[in-house]
Amino acid sequence: MSLRLDEIVARLGGDLAGDGTLTVSRVAPLDKAASGDITFLSNPKYRSSLIATGATAVIVTAEAASACPVAAIITAQPYLYFARVAQLLNPPLRPPAGVHPAAVVESPLPASVSVGAHARIGQNVTVGENTIVEAGTVIADDCSIGNDCWLYANVSIYSRTRIGARAIIHSGAVIGADGFGFARERGGAWVKIPQTGGVVIGDDVEIGANTTIDRGAIDATEIGHGVKLDNQIQVAHNVHIGDHTAIAGCVGIAGSARIGRRCTFGGAAMVLGHLEIADDVNVSSGTMVAKSITKAGSYTGWVPFLEHSEWLKNYSRLRHLDALADRIRALEARLAQLEKTS
Amino acid sequence: MSLRLDEIVARLGGDLAGDGTLTVSRVAPLDKAASGDITFLSNPKYRSSLIATGATAVIVTAEAASACPVAAIITAQPYLYFARVAQLLNPPLRPPAGVHPAAVVESPLPASVSVGAHARIGQNVTVGENTIVEAGTVIADDCSIGNDCWLYANVSIYSRTRIGARAIIHSGAVIGADGFGFARERGGAWVKIPQTGGVVIGDDVEIGANTTIDRGAIDATEIGHGVKLDNQIQVAHNVHIGDHTAIAGCVGIAGSARIGRRCTFGGAAMVLGHLEIADDVNVSSGTMVAKSITKAGSYTGWVPFLEHSEWLKNYSRLRHLDALADRIRALEARLAQLEKTS
Amino acid sequence: MSLRLDEIVARLGGDLAGDGTLTVSRVAPLDKAASGDITFLSNPKYRSSLIATGATAVIVTAEAASACPVAAIITAQPYLYFARVAQLLNPPLRPPAGVHPAAVVESPLPASVSVGAHARIGQNVTVGENTIVEAGTVIADDCSIGNDCWLYANVSIYSRTRIGARAIIHSGAVIGADGFGFARERGGAWVKIPQTGGVVIGDDVEIGANTTIDRGAIDATEIGHGVKLDNQIQVAHNVHIGDHTAIAGCVGIAGSARIGRRCTFGGAAMVLGHLEIADDVNVSSGTMVAKSITKAGSYTGWVPFLEHSEWLKNYSRLRHLDALADRIRALEARLAQLEKTS
Repeated sequence: MSLRLDEIVARLGGDLAGDGTLTVSRVAPLDKAASGDITFLSNPKYRSSLIATGATAVIVTAEAASACPVAAIITAQPYLYFARVAQLLNPPLRPPAGVHPAAVVESPLPASVSVGAHARIGQNVTVGENTIVEAGTVIADDCSIGNDCWLYANVSIYSRTRIGARAIIHSGAVIGADGFGFARERGGAWVKIPQTGGVVIGDDVEIGANTTIDRGAIDATEIGHGVKLDNQIQVAHNVHIGDHTAIAGCVGIAGSARIGRRCTFGGAAMVLGHLEIADDVNVSSGTMVAKSITKAGSYTGWVPFLEHSEWLKNYSRLRHLDALADRIRALEARLAQLEKTS
Repeated sequence: MSLRLDEIVARLGGDLAGDGTLTVSRVAPLDKAASGDITFLSNPKYRSSLIATGATAVIVTAEAASACPVAAIITAQPYLYFARVAQLLNPPLRPPAGVHPAAVVESPLPASVSVGAHARIGQNVTVGENTIVEAGTVIADDCSIGNDCWLYANVSIYSRTRIGARAIIHSGAVIGADGFGFARERGGAWVKIPQTGGVVIGDDVEIGANTTIDRGAIDATEIGHGVKLDNQIQVAHNVHIGDHTAIAGCVGIAGSARIGRRCTFGGAAMVLGHLEIADDVNVSSGTMVAKSITKAGSYTGWVPFLEHSEWLKNYSRLRHLDALADRIRALEARLAQLEKTS
Repeated sequence: MSLRLDEIVARLGGDLAGDGTLTVSRVAPLDKAASGDITFLSNPKYRSSLIATGATAVIVTAEAASACPVAAIITAQPYLYFARVAQLLNPPLRPPAGVHPAAVVESPLPASVSVGAHARIGQNVTVGENTIVEAGTVIADDCSIGNDCWLYANVSIYSRTRIGARAIIHSGAVIGADGFGFARERGGAWVKIPQTGGVVIGDDVEIGANTTIDRGAIDATEIGHGVKLDNQIQVAHNVHIGDHTAIAGCVGIAGSARIGRRCTFGGAAMVLGHLEIADDVNVSSGTMVAKSITKAGSYTGWVPFLEHSEWLKNYSRLRHLDALADRIRALEARLAQLEKTS
């Protein structure tokens, strides 16, 4: 796939500076781009790489355009434009429509749907146009999947899961397993509380490899539109995640937490149960969110690592932080007394 | 499914206050319950919701019964009773018994067993009565699975795994993969130590989606009766988990750790290798257990998050905690000297 | 399988002390070994167990040999030798060569390859001699897998993944899913950046159950030779991991991080994106690596757990650590003033 610069601008907008008949066929980072590549500059600090670029064309802001030694596409948000060019140049390689003879499908499907070998689609399942269900993926009964979705190999969808349009679900993801709900007998044994709610997922959601989203206990677990979940994320029962929130790998969100819209979570952050997180909150990697966050902003809670012996010396003090604070208070009192008498 | 209140009491015990011919068909939270619903009150602080409830019936303690405006079932442990009512009202939708023609089964199975499409059961495998093996699940050779188990889709069971009765194993769980054991050559290369132990799982165990339990190096990894494991838990080789211990999502337990009975672990807690955890220990979410715990109780070790700039200011001090403590000691000495001379 | 001691020494080297015609059939820990077992002593502090051992033979260093009450194999690295003996005594039980009739294979394979039921191997896939692909495993188009690999059940390999010789890949592992890359629109919506790089994995790599390795955005994600990854590890796009690095379970490595050779990571450690970790670095369990490490050594960053009420008292002080440090500084100034005047 290769495109002329004037074709790109015709499709995606922006202003062209330079020869529109030049063609590009590949996106590349600014410092590695070669002839035939298109790249971008969004951070002014990489301007020296711009001057030296080997790319055929660069996507730049108006301010940076004058420094661009090659053809430029000028736009207010170069990285966003770059994403769209990358999509044009890399159309996904879709498997052919139709149901593989080694698949087991128990619901009628549109002819445009692709179902791979050893996939299993249960009864009373609705699948939208052009959706792809790859090999080994299992969709239980009574589910609905929207148009233009892509479920990669070995995904597991439990019954009564509803997924909107254009979802991308990666291998090993499990959607709709039972939430973790038990009552306890006096002797300590656990009695399972049936998890009868489902999972409702909006449009334009991406779900990473081996991510798990549990079904609700009574009401549904809800994932908003445009939510992006990386790999190995655990979303417990009755969690709500607001539209356009993006969550990096290894994050855990405990039961009934409500996450706002347009939030971001760094890798391995944790959110405890029943908390509320406001819209536009950014949680840093490795941060334990143990109380609700009511205000947009950035929040962090991890500890700096040290060379091991330094760590041992410093962090063992944490066990005695309260005593240290008491000693400071005692010092202050004694010193005040001394200052008074001297 | 709907049940009369007097039928419920006949099956589950408790005392009925009100019209036993009323029927309920759904469990619901106290504040959302409507006509036809049964709910519960266990925490006295929600008593105002009790007074306003729209439920047909409420499960309450004797103390709260007088405040219940509708029919009541009186029991010492309302939440536990609620769990049992929820089970009565929500019997699982079992797939039909029999082996799907697209399954591959190499061991004789009882007629009551259900095996889904593209499941594969190896040689010399014993499966108990009424057990369900869903689509895409693979059980390797020489395993035994008890009665009334439910293995959801795409579970992987390695050879020589023994699972008791009534297990529930969710999609993507992997049981019996090799433990992580290597010896090191001088140059740094690792030589694999064959992992020849198996996994032994008791009765009434639930294992969450994408949870992994490794086989032992020589002896078995052992999971006790009634253990409940949430999603994405990692249990390393030769771990022992005592009866009725419940572990929330994303927890990791390193090799040869021995966890007691009736323990609870919050999400993303970690236990280092070769430690012993006593019975009835509660470990908070996000806590690194780096030494053995010999006494029942609650243990915690995570750091509070802060607004990012506050965090930066405060947590950077951790690198110098030892120096701060030294400065306090020096102050104490100087002050004592001054107090002596003044 | 049982072997005479002289056969073992003939194959693996080392010096024999005692009767070479004795046979052993099982490896065992020093304190549990019985007749017919071979064990090892590498840590001198277990010498008392050596004296009391019930083993038929013990692998020891020259220094310890005189204390060995039974037959001994003398070698400089007993644990490494033990690993090799364990391999000899426990040859893997290979499934038979050939393609199961319920597999779907779209590329020509060597006759020595074993493909299990419901596995699916796509087009233009190269598989080396003696490689095993177990039931339910899916290999997408355009992949290459080396000789003598073992892919357990329900592994998912995306297109254009290259895997070297002798790989062991455990169930539920997902290799080559899309990296987590998006540009953001002003309104907050995310636009996917196509992930067009692949994954390149060296020889002698082991990948644990449910571990995920994402494909690169443009260039490949690269895993070196002899790398050992435990279960539930997340390796993001464009990460490089150097030869012979070993990573324990639940670790997360964010995008474009470069990990050196012969590093070790304890469980649940995290590495942030775009960092560089030098060769021969050891990162402790639960440590957040938030800046590059340029020097070999051991690095740690987790906090000690405490009994819950002690934790509450001490760790709440972290919110005010900066203020505590200010109070110490103020005390120092006041005290110096007082010392001057007294």
